[in-house]
Amino acid sequence: MSTAIASLDTPAALIDVSRMQRNIQRMQQRMGTLGVRLRPHIKTSKCLPVIQAQIDAGASGVTVSTLKEAEHCFTAGISDVFYAVAIAPGKLPQALALRRKGCNLSVLTDSVSGAQAIVAFAQQHDERFDVWIEIDCDGHRSGLAAEDDSLIDVARILSEGGMQLRGVMTHAGSSYELDTLEALQALAEQERLLCVRAAERIRETGMACPEVSIGSTPTALSALNLEGITEVRAGVYVFFDLVMHNIGVCQADELALSVMTTVIGHQQDKGWIITDAGWMAMSRDRGTQRQRQDFGYGQVCTEAGDWIEGALVTGANQEHGIITLGAAGSDDLVARFPIGSRLRILPNHACATGAQFPDYHAVDADGAVHTWSRLHGW
Amino acid sequence: MSTAIASLDTPAALIDVSRMQRNIQRMQQRMGTLGVRLRPHIKTSKCLPVIQAQIDAGASGVTVSTLKEAEHCFTAGISDVFYAVAIAPGKLPQALALRRKGCNLSVLTDSVSGAQAIVAFAQQHDERFDVWIEIDCDGHRSGLAAEDDSLIDVARILSEGGMQLRGVMTHAGSSYELDTLEALQALAEQERLLCVRAAERIRETGMACPEVSIGSTPTALSALNLEGITEVRAGVYVFFDLVMHNIGVCQADELALSVMTTVIGHQQDKGWIITDAGWMAMSRDRGTQRQRQDFGYGQVCTEAGDWIEGALVTGANQEHGIITLGAAGSDDLVARFPIGSRLRILPNHACATGAQFPDYHAVDADGAVHTWSRLHGW
Repeated sequence: MSTAIASLDTPAALIDVSRMQRNIQRMQQRMGTLGVRLRPHIKTSKCLPVIQAQIDAGASGVTVSTLKEAEHCFTAGISDVFYAVAIAPGKLPQALALRRKGCNLSVLTDSVSGAQAIVAFAQQHDERFDVWIEIDCDGHRSGLAAEDDSLIDVARILSEGGMQLRGVMTHAGSSYELDTLEALQALAEQERLLCVRAAERIRETGMACPEVSIGSTPTALSALNLEGITEVRAGVYVFFDLVMHNIGVCQADELALSVMTTVIGHQQDKGWIITDAGWMAMSRDRGTQRQRQDFGYGQVCTEAGDWIEGALVTGANQEHGIITLGAAGSDDLVARFPIGSRLRILPNHACATGAQFPDYHAVDADGAVHTWSRLHGW
Repeated sequence: MSTAIASLDTPAALIDVSRMQRNIQRMQQRMGTLGVRLRPHIKTSKCLPVIQAQIDAGASGVTVSTLKEAEHCFTAGISDVFYAVAIAPGKLPQALALRRKGCNLSVLTDSVSGAQAIVAFAQQHDERFDVWIEIDCDGHRSGLAAEDDSLIDVARILSEGGMQLRGVMTHAGSSYELDTLEALQALAEQERLLCVRAAERIRETGMACPEVSIGSTPTALSALNLEGITEVRAGVYVFFDLVMHNIGVCQADELALSVMTTVIGHQQDKGWIITDAGWMAMSRDRGTQRQRQDFGYGQVCTEAGDWIEGALVTGANQEHGIITLGAAGSDDLVARFPIGSRLRILPNHACATGAQFPDYHAVDADGAVHTWSRLHGW
């Protein structure tokens, strides 16, 4: 343990930089092999050094979940930004302001009225927005079905309204519910087929639909064929987490985000270790609750990062975590995990846990620690 | 709807200032009637104007969950600060620095080794810390049982080590699992009795134990008798939330925190309204999941704040909320809740939802909106 890590106040969010770099390389190389561009979703890290590492590795632009992220990226010199949430009409002035500053911001819609709002605002301000249409490939959330009659209406409203129809996009969010390679491959193929089909339907009418964008970390790492796809969006692969581990798309030694915590007490009778990483540090995300293995609020590791098999954060109050040791046995709890000793917790969901912290502590292979700030709010 | 509210970007965390002031008055008056001081737990708001309103109403000092909160309060002129989480030895230098600046910071322990660490550090730095001992009154989390042999050991280590034994404290956290007045009154009495008993055991040895501090919002609002108690700590009462509503300690018109959101899409076939308040805005807190009524990720209200009976946020992705209307019926969904229209969501847990936002928007009775910043991180 380096002095730098040992002197961190807890709770602290640590990034293992070597693992992060390997994760970035892995996804980038895979996309290269499959012949598509990678547009990472930066909502996971919301952190410029992480995003820059993705760009340096070959990413083509970024995906964002808020206009604040878009602004942040643009200020750092990243101008190809896709705001991949159907835009609320009230946010169009902010999107316009970004474009007027030179940001190549593209926006998203999945409805006739959404498209009409974009066109009306754009015409009022003499702007030609780059617009994507969202496709629903798995019933998970938003988007138009590939065969929906409205798809052509939306494309026509945008094209005839003078917008640049950038393409179609989808997100197979239901991949988070799977955990076999066969099911993931099947969903990845469904995601590809339906998004390509939507693009073809638009093209059949004579309108241009240059881009076909898909993505989720599980499907991106499972797809065998991305014919017809131009780009993939994925986010959580940069850190991975226990949800991804349960799905089966990463190994334990690829988990790059952890929370350092200090033991502050015990309830020996109950087999509890009390720590200073409660839900304010871990988040309330219980993403593994219905998966193959329920990790509670996180997998407990030694300070150095080695898994303590069976040890989980099974309870969380605001600033108190409760660890139970399970198979690791609770004899001599107090002696084995004395007050003041440290543990590291692997989170269920890197996007949610990261969001609880104003900064990450990025740990290099040599133990040096850098403080990397992250965005908060909208 | 005032222009100021209508022009807020979403998602936005709104405080109804009138309700907040009534909540503050209600708790302060109740504590006055019961003859005890109130030391509000500011971990709920982490926001100075809210804390100042509590102080102005008669609160005696504050309770904090992090040393960052302590620093923040002290900088604002509040010097009686109780850090009510058993202190990790590694945080003692920061506590010392605060005390040396003039902050009357008191700290907490619930173990022999914790007490020894405090004494060793204090003696090394020629300091006399104010220390509380934590009592476990309901098996919920931390603390020593009132009858635990170690209680006297801990008190003696502190006293003989030259510390100021401030008193004993407990928190009946299991009150969150109750929902009848009878059960709450019984737990409040148990909280009182066991904490008073712990103080008496210490006093019987000849040591001083001036303070007896208890508290949780549900027990504070249910207790019939606080004999032997000197102060009550409570936090979430300042805003209340759906968890408190299910417990039965507040009415719908006392819920002072809500999240304003914008409709960004629909899935008419499924009866879904898609909004821009996902779990990043609401938090992942599902505190009502096992209560009398499960509110999903929140109760949906009109923009003006009127409950839409049956309408809940039933799904949440990072920046997408999914609302289903239940008893409100999903006919004409798109026409009734068009893209761009606004809704307000009441959260399960005010502490968790507030923490997702860098600022609150405090709305006065006349519709004026003030931006109140809140703390983030440690």
